[in-house]
Amino acid sequence: MTEPRQLSLNAFIYPSGHHEAAWRHPQSRPERIYDVGYYQEIGRTAEAAKLDAVFFADGPALRADVKHNAVSGLEPITLLTAIATATTHLGLIATASTTYYEPYNLARLFSTLDHISGGRAGWNIVTTGTDLAAANFGLDAHPDHAERYARAREFVDAVVSLWDSWEDDAILLDKEAGIYADPDKIHQIDFVGEYLKVRGPFNAPRTPQGHPVLVQAGASNDGRAFAGKYAEAIFTAHQRLVDAQAFYSDIKAQARAFGRDPDQIKILPGISPFIADTEAEAKKLEREFNELTVPDYGLKQLESIAGTSLRHLPLDGPVPLELFSDAGDVTDNSRSRLQVVAGIVERERPTVRGLLHRLAGARGHRVFAGTPEQVADTIEEWFRNGAADGFNVMPPYYPGGLEVFARTVVPILQERGIFRTEYTGTTLRDHFGLTRPESRYARHPALAG
Amino acid sequence: MTEPRQLSLNAFIYPSGHHEAAWRHPQSRPERIYDVGYYQEIGRTAEAAKLDAVFFADGPALRADVKHNAVSGLEPITLLTAIATATTHLGLIATASTTYYEPYNLARLFSTLDHISGGRAGWNIVTTGTDLAAANFGLDAHPDHAERYARAREFVDAVVSLWDSWEDDAILLDKEAGIYADPDKIHQIDFVGEYLKVRGPFNAPRTPQGHPVLVQAGASNDGRAFAGKYAEAIFTAHQRLVDAQAFYSDIKAQARAFGRDPDQIKILPGISPFIADTEAEAKKLEREFNELTVPDYGLKQLESIAGTSLRHLPLDGPVPLELFSDAGDVTDNSRSRLQVVAGIVERERPTVRGLLHRLAGARGHRVFAGTPEQVADTIEEWFRNGAADGFNVMPPYYPGGLEVFARTVVPILQERGIFRTEYTGTTLRDHFGLTRPESRYARHPALAG
Repeated sequence: MTEPRQLSLNAFIYPSGHHEAAWRHPQSRPERIYDVGYYQEIGRTAEAAKLDAVFFADGPALRADVKHNAVSGLEPITLLTAIATATTHLGLIATASTTYYEPYNLARLFSTLDHISGGRAGWNIVTTGTDLAAANFGLDAHPDHAERYARAREFVDAVVSLWDSWEDDAILLDKEAGIYADPDKIHQIDFVGEYLKVRGPFNAPRTPQGHPVLVQAGASNDGRAFAGKYAEAIFTAHQRLVDAQAFYSDIKAQARAFGRDPDQIKILPGISPFIADTEAEAKKLEREFNELTVPDYGLKQLESIAGTSLRHLPLDGPVPLELFSDAGDVTDNSRSRLQVVAGIVERERPTVRGLLHRLAGARGHRVFAGTPEQVADTIEEWFRNGAADGFNVMPPYYPGGLEVFARTVVPILQERGIFRTEYTGTTLRDHFGLTRPESRYARHPALAG
Repeated sequence: MTEPRQLSLNAFIYPSGHHEAAWRHPQSRPERIYDVGYYQEIGRTAEAAKLDAVFFADGPALRADVKHNAVSGLEPITLLTAIATATTHLGLIATASTTYYEPYNLARLFSTLDHISGGRAGWNIVTTGTDLAAANFGLDAHPDHAERYARAREFVDAVVSLWDSWEDDAILLDKEAGIYADPDKIHQIDFVGEYLKVRGPFNAPRTPQGHPVLVQAGASNDGRAFAGKYAEAIFTAHQRLVDAQAFYSDIKAQARAFGRDPDQIKILPGISPFIADTEAEAKKLEREFNELTVPDYGLKQLESIAGTSLRHLPLDGPVPLELFSDAGDVTDNSRSRLQVVAGIVERERPTVRGLLHRLAGARGHRVFAGTPEQVADTIEEWFRNGAADGFNVMPPYYPGGLEVFARTVVPILQERGIFRTEYTGTTLRDHFGLTRPESRYARHPALAG
């Protein structure tokens, strides 16, 4: 390709917006968060701006403190199906848990989404970080981090094998001879692991993309190794260019070590932009949202990261440095969030209220307030300096926060030649520049079941 | 209500049609069975005819002999979501297994479908009859019938409790005070059974219908008792009026025994109609389809019902009576299919080929070939004589088989005043005449978690 390297941009959909107080602000529409039309309109806005995809987080439990935030636990694959029918090119990425699903069931949901959408599905693979989910699935305790990742590796292997189990040319549709499909091209997978056993074959053909795009978001050591091996796109959280660069280099190196082409892993940090005509107005808008936060809500979130009670601290006194000094090595994902907070505390020495405001925007992801030019500048800076292949855009409020990004920032990026002005393909793989994988059974006919 | 009792009519969607050879006939469209537009068009045809709902069967395994039949295992809740966005009134019923799903995950899928569709979802509760599924879920053997039903009872209790766990007025949306929801109206369910433990609460509000309509299809003794207690609609298979009447009376009596209003259970036998301008042409069309069957395919299906090999029998010789004489009591669902076959063999004394043709149409459901008037007559006869509250219409071929039913039979039923000419409500409960259930937590505040 002779055209310059292109950014990938996803819209990360969150009910009223990523800012925890978004639902209280007049710009948001919390009364619509259970209305499918609301999500379809967001999808159409993203597609009109030629974004790569929309993305949903998910967890099988009532997560946040519902007293003070407009949460929605609508099931994301179903929502994305509704968005699929309202769009033609937009990629559709849903989070789903390897700890709390069965591989055969989850493989079917994503396969069907890929069939329905003509090849636009992506699966954000998580092991689920919250122990609230365990009690909804009959477990007394959430499996530990190492066990969750061990199961996750088996789970992804089993699911991809199911997706591959019909070779691309398995369907003959020979009406004359009465032969619909060639049984020799449909394989039992006979997967046997420590945690999972799945015989197969799958009960639907291979999908337009070969299989849905594999996305990953864990930042722990296990998470990075997992990403290096399996992920085709990674969502990540960094406050500073230097941290993002270190993460970017590490992942690309891990991919090389697994014998993979590093260009086949797209690294996409989160950015939550407050956008206005002047920097002062953008910062004023951010303050407006921060002033709507409920300290009790933010404290609960922060306590779950710190692992200790913070109620005794005066809101307008300093955050004691030692509270977050022990972030150490990132052995699991919640510790990676602790590390982000520790960095903020060490560099900025905020008051408790100030720290709550810093985290209110996007749960540890980077919040940026500025003009459209400034937002485009920081995106371009990270893109051109080995920190990002694109971004997971996290509007502080919906739908307006995405609309202003689409209307003001996207045209600047297009003008600079680093973001598409038209879709050049039809699948999510096309948008991300990922190749269509061959079925593993097509390469190894000896495995035929 | 002063208007006469009204029929319920569902369209049971099956990839190329219910006849096992449908995919070979020029009237079917097997090349479209993985195309979402195909299913959306079928949904629009059903809605234009004012049908109550569309319905999908399902099982988490590759079921039929894929060499000789155009099977599709696309996930039905996802497909129904796509149909939901293409329609405004049509009910949407999907089959899902209590044996091979987790209650929290399944509760979310159906809840989201009910939210997305504005109250049109129904869940056809099955325990899964095939042992092929077990090996896809790490089990060495399919749990036996009694164990599956014991788990099913717990599963339905847990799922309905999750759906009820947000009271209808839990969301306050008080922006001024910063209170989104009232935590006292969102309940842990603390379900503890022999097979399942689910704490809750659910992570989404109660749905437009209160909860999706509970549908059931098991004909075994356990299945009937389960239906009497839980089901709001029942799909059933009968060849003869007298058998359908006996089933109808039994279910309504069981409902009364559980203290329920028998009108709140709709009983819907299957009917697979070949329709033409004359009876002779309709029977000729049926023969055309039967002549496209592959005996090897039909024998495999019949062997799985008989539980014995039939390969030694000459195709044009008689079916030995003793092969199906031991149907006895209906202890499980596969025995209920055996009983249907035994009845046909005893009454009709068919050849092996003749029996295969009798079963090729709709897997033991009633096949009827006739004029539009004759189809309307038999529907009305069963409806007026205590055998049915409506029908699950199983077109032998799609999409044409549904189109001809909609164009020719529906107007006759409307003319006779027993089927709606316009929808009078917007939810599936409205169409079936079912009341909206109160949350069990609203009735019993002492249970609050």
